[in-house]
Amino acid sequence: MKSEKISELTTNRLSVYLRCLKDLADGGHETVSSEALAKAYNLNSAQIRKDLANFGEFGVRGVGYCIKSLRENLTDILGLNSRRRVCIIGAGRLGAALANYYISSGKNFEVVALFDVDQQKIGKKISDVEVFDVKDFAAVAKRAKIEVAVLAVPAESAQSIADVVMGAGIKAVMNFAPVPLKVCEDVKLKTVDLTTSLDSLSYYLAGADRSNGKHMKPNGGGGRI
Amino acid sequence: MKSEKISELTTNRLSVYLRCLKDLADGGHETVSSEALAKAYNLNSAQIRKDLANFGEFGVRGVGYCIKSLRENLTDILGLNSRRRVCIIGAGRLGAALANYYISSGKNFEVVALFDVDQQKIGKKISDVEVFDVKDFAAVAKRAKIEVAVLAVPAESAQSIADVVMGAGIKAVMNFAPVPLKVCEDVKLKTVDLTTSLDSLSYYLAGADRSNGKHMKPNGGGGRI
Repeated sequence: MKSEKISELTTNRLSVYLRCLKDLADGGHETVSSEALAKAYNLNSAQIRKDLANFGEFGVRGVGYCIKSLRENLTDILGLNSRRRVCIIGAGRLGAALANYYISSGKNFEVVALFDVDQQKIGKKISDVEVFDVKDFAAVAKRAKIEVAVLAVPAESAQSIADVVMGAGIKAVMNFAPVPLKVCEDVKLKTVDLTTSLDSLSYYLAGADRSNGKHMKPNGGGGRI
Repeated sequence: MKSEKISELTTNRLSVYLRCLKDLADGGHETVSSEALAKAYNLNSAQIRKDLANFGEFGVRGVGYCIKSLRENLTDILGLNSRRRVCIIGAGRLGAALANYYISSGKNFEVVALFDVDQQKIGKKISDVEVFDVKDFAAVAKRAKIEVAVLAVPAESAQSIADVVMGAGIKAVMNFAPVPLKVCEDVKLKTVDLTTSLDSLSYYLAGADRSNGKHMKPNGGGGRI
């Protein structure tokens, strides 16, 4: 058991494997080899074996993995055998879309509350989930046993909202606001920066320009700045 | 110039620096040291210097970076000096929220078209952007000079849509569908998996359970599976 050293990239892949296995199970399959799994879902078979080996020996040589058993194991490893109670802060378009997405996309997560500062939204429901006042975050979070906070707020308010969330004892935060956040050591922060993702595609598209050195306008000087 | 070796993590950080510099410029600042930049935005000053050193020497010792000049350089490096023309495929809640988000969040990207298969949506507008029939993708993409395709479609149709997108010559794809995609070598794929992100938070929350080995149910056997 080497879970202490498991990287986020590995757990991300375990999450993908789990969904692929669900798909195979839905299709009536009972066993699958790492090669067949890799081929069916554009994955890397050596990587699958390596990732799973971190947690034990789940397969049988010549047979492959028992899909049912591997799903149970991955579900356990990812801590998904109990539904995680999630709130979304920011009931704008992105927050509402995320609420709808997580409500409709499976049973591992339960969106139990939305929060906003807009009095027009507070008390209303989005996809059957009530919108609460951010001012009442701590009380609602405690009552609703919220474990994960998803931040879909503007950049300028993200840090202060994160502080409120951490003050209420939440240990897992997913941040969609396009700004780096400072969190306590015992809080796990996951950033999904929708702008950065597009910027990195732009960098790729700009590849043709890059080779001609057009953008190089160094100021001179050097050393530690 | 070492741009060939620049990782996506580096370009992601450049994108963050660029937004932080905009914020500083908006606040009336003209120069900033790597330390001050790091402190103000929860970044790492050594990382900033290392990242920027990939592209030249942009700062002056004892003075820091000229914000205006560094912004111009980063904008050039990321290929953001011309607006990138983006389409979003899937005009459901997530697609609509992304359209709205990218339209309102800056001028680097222009959402020029949405696509869907739902005849009820085709011909309508979302945030002033027309929804086209996916069947007409190639023609619309050519006419609208689309460079980037954002996929906000269900998992089961993501690969076939990606094939249509690549068939139309698009070289940059951002995929929100929770499924691994196979793309041509010359196509840059960026995956934003909203489910995986939550799963990795769940893995963190499950940390307390992990140490007691409850989830270990290896099947025995071993070797290559």
